[in-house]
Amino acid sequence: MAQHTLFLLPGDGIGTEIMAEVEKLIAHLNGSGATDFSYESGLVGGCAYDAHGVAISEEDMAKAVAADAVIFGAVGGPKWDDVPYDVRPEAGLLRLRKDLGLFANLRPAICYSALADASSLKRELVEGLDILIVRELTGGVYFGEPKEITDLGNGQKRAVDTQVYESYEIDRIARVALDLAMTRGKKVHSADKKNVMKSGVLWDEVVKQAAKDYPEIEVQQILADNAAMQLVRNPKQFDVMVTDNLFGDILSDAAAMLTGSLGMLPSASLGAPDPETGMRKAMYEPVHGSAPDIAGQGIANPIAMFASFAMALRYSFGMVELATRLETAISDVLEDGLRTGDIMQTGCRKVTTAEMADAIIAKL
Amino acid sequence: MAQHTLFLLPGDGIGTEIMAEVEKLIAHLNGSGATDFSYESGLVGGCAYDAHGVAISEEDMAKAVAADAVIFGAVGGPKWDDVPYDVRPEAGLLRLRKDLGLFANLRPAICYSALADASSLKRELVEGLDILIVRELTGGVYFGEPKEITDLGNGQKRAVDTQVYESYEIDRIARVALDLAMTRGKKVHSADKKNVMKSGVLWDEVVKQAAKDYPEIEVQQILADNAAMQLVRNPKQFDVMVTDNLFGDILSDAAAMLTGSLGMLPSASLGAPDPETGMRKAMYEPVHGSAPDIAGQGIANPIAMFASFAMALRYSFGMVELATRLETAISDVLEDGLRTGDIMQTGCRKVTTAEMADAIIAKL
Ligand SMILES: CC(C)[C@H](C(=O)O)[C@@H](O)C(=O)O
Ligand SMILES: CC(C)[C@H](C(=O)O)[C@@H](O)C(=O)O
Repeated sequence: MAQHTLFLLPGDGIGTEIMAEVEKLIAHLNGSGATDFSYESGLVGGCAYDAHGVAISEEDMAKAVAADAVIFGAVGGPKWDDVPYDVRPEAGLLRLRKDLGLFANLRPAICYSALADASSLKRELVEGLDILIVRELTGGVYFGEPKEITDLGNGQKRAVDTQVYESYEIDRIARVALDLAMTRGKKVHSADKKNVMKSGVLWDEVVKQAAKDYPEIEVQQILADNAAMQLVRNPKQFDVMVTDNLFGDILSDAAAMLTGSLGMLPSASLGAPDPETGMRKAMYEPVHGSAPDIAGQGIANPIAMFASFAMALRYSFGMVELATRLETAISDVLEDGLRTGDIMQTGCRKVTTAEMADAIIAKL
Repeated sequence: MAQHTLFLLPGDGIGTEIMAEVEKLIAHLNGSGATDFSYESGLVGGCAYDAHGVAISEEDMAKAVAADAVIFGAVGGPKWDDVPYDVRPEAGLLRLRKDLGLFANLRPAICYSALADASSLKRELVEGLDILIVRELTGGVYFGEPKEITDLGNGQKRAVDTQVYESYEIDRIARVALDLAMTRGKKVHSADKKNVMKSGVLWDEVVKQAAKDYPEIEVQQILADNAAMQLVRNPKQFDVMVTDNLFGDILSDAAAMLTGSLGMLPSASLGAPDPETGMRKAMYEPVHGSAPDIAGQGIANPIAMFASFAMALRYSFGMVELATRLETAISDVLEDGLRTGDIMQTGCRKVTTAEMADAIIAKL
């Protein structure tokens, strides 16, 4: 069996607690002979700042680059609210995305049927919901230059951020979305603000061009503001939605919250396939944050982290069957009525982080 | 009684139908002696392009500048999907905002209790909802330069949009939000992406500085992605939300859709008060669009247009009592069970645009 290397970056807050369960999961998978993972751990975010004065050290960056996949927890917390901008916890995450070239962020918004009542939307609107948001992750206003604040004197300042997209960046993310749509409902919505932004005009042009290579897929442009509305009105009209870095940030969070399963949702960030090996750099992380309010109590929900690990099995290692088994184990423990505090419902059994993780591992 | 001038810009699609009802409303108000409005009408959007080859003519721009208030319908439609970028229907709207200096866009998201069941959210989450989104409207990525597409050769292009904010632009919109919050729940959320954008860093800094002059108000920063989530999760936690042009576009549309009252929601766009007269330039328009699919059938809902006119009475002419009477008349006809097709419910009576408008006017 092929040996694979993982680099674990637990980060801050509940990140360390849920990553401890990932280590148990890896031990189980390796022990059962299903996988042969070796791994190391590093620091990112606030804990890296405390240790090294930066959001991720050069040494850990090198390990992230060398690994077959990075498994990421969460970063940030009030402790680091006032650290300098360039070394704030998020800077570690942004550097990983940029330096690993992780341009394709896959954010499934699925509604676990056991949790459909936890949604703020009416049950019938979210039950069975399964949207995949494909967000561009290394371009746009996140990284464009100039990005600066200038002092104009008289107490006035001017702040500038720049949204930049080149055709190839749009083309490659469009093709990721189109390829994924071929394995799903064959429907792609592409969200932009082409009525106001030149990057939206180019976005739409390039997406439509790429779509010509996928005649089976129904591709539809939608304005980002309308997309936000339609996600609220009737989310099940969507299958795959592709959009830029900033719109993707906002729309995927709204979509995640719709499902009622926010604490459960995973994400994958993928680079381009290596022309020789076909391997792509990749990082897997839960959609939720570091939840400083409940950190250290052993009560965080490990499911989003495990579901992210399932995405790693599927997208980085082609272990599709094992990924599905892990996902099924997650649904099964939910059907059995196990709940961490964040998703507790009357009639269910409240469990700790470790109990939830153990129950999932036992199902495997 | 003071004479006031209005400039009506019906625009395209259902814009002309709902503006015809505004003319009836003005005639009634003038006739009853409550007001003394004189008005003219002009062209904006696709109809202006058809007539003059531009999205608004210089002559109509001059009339908009001269009027005490502009009443705007809606622009756009498939007929003009392929007109050149600079003269597309939206360009007329954007030019009005910019040239009139309408930096403050007020978008109430209220849930009419007669319509709470029309929301996709559970009734208890939206019943009684009353949020005011205060969106910056003349800055940010909508107007920043450079804004261009460059041909790089090899079939590659680069598109650039620029988000620019200066301190004074943030300060004045923050103070509009803070002043309005003093008349409401004394709570302001300020949404930005300061963890990624320098304009967000400056935004937060200037808002916090302005807030010092309003010690009674609780001001809270929120990341725009989290704001989208929280609007879906529990919208009633918000009172006033102030944000930039682009985030405001998306968040206010999501908030509007939450209420179940989308076809009913008004907006006001205000300039700075004239230092001498205290009058501010202003434009009032429904949040909904030109709805080309139902245009020309006499079935469009005139309520958002009438509610926008109520905002004109309140904000441009200080006729607070009359504004409230108009708003009450709107609720009353809804309680009476009158519905246009877009908000039809079983047990209610379906009416046309004109019937709905007449019923509201009769209540006055
Ligand atoms: C933490 C932050 C920089 C990040 C982003 O804005 O991309 C987060 O919101 C996300 O969506 O992963
Ligand atoms: C029509 C369009 C240019 C406009 C905007 O993006 O501001 C609209 O969406 C709005 O919110 O008024």
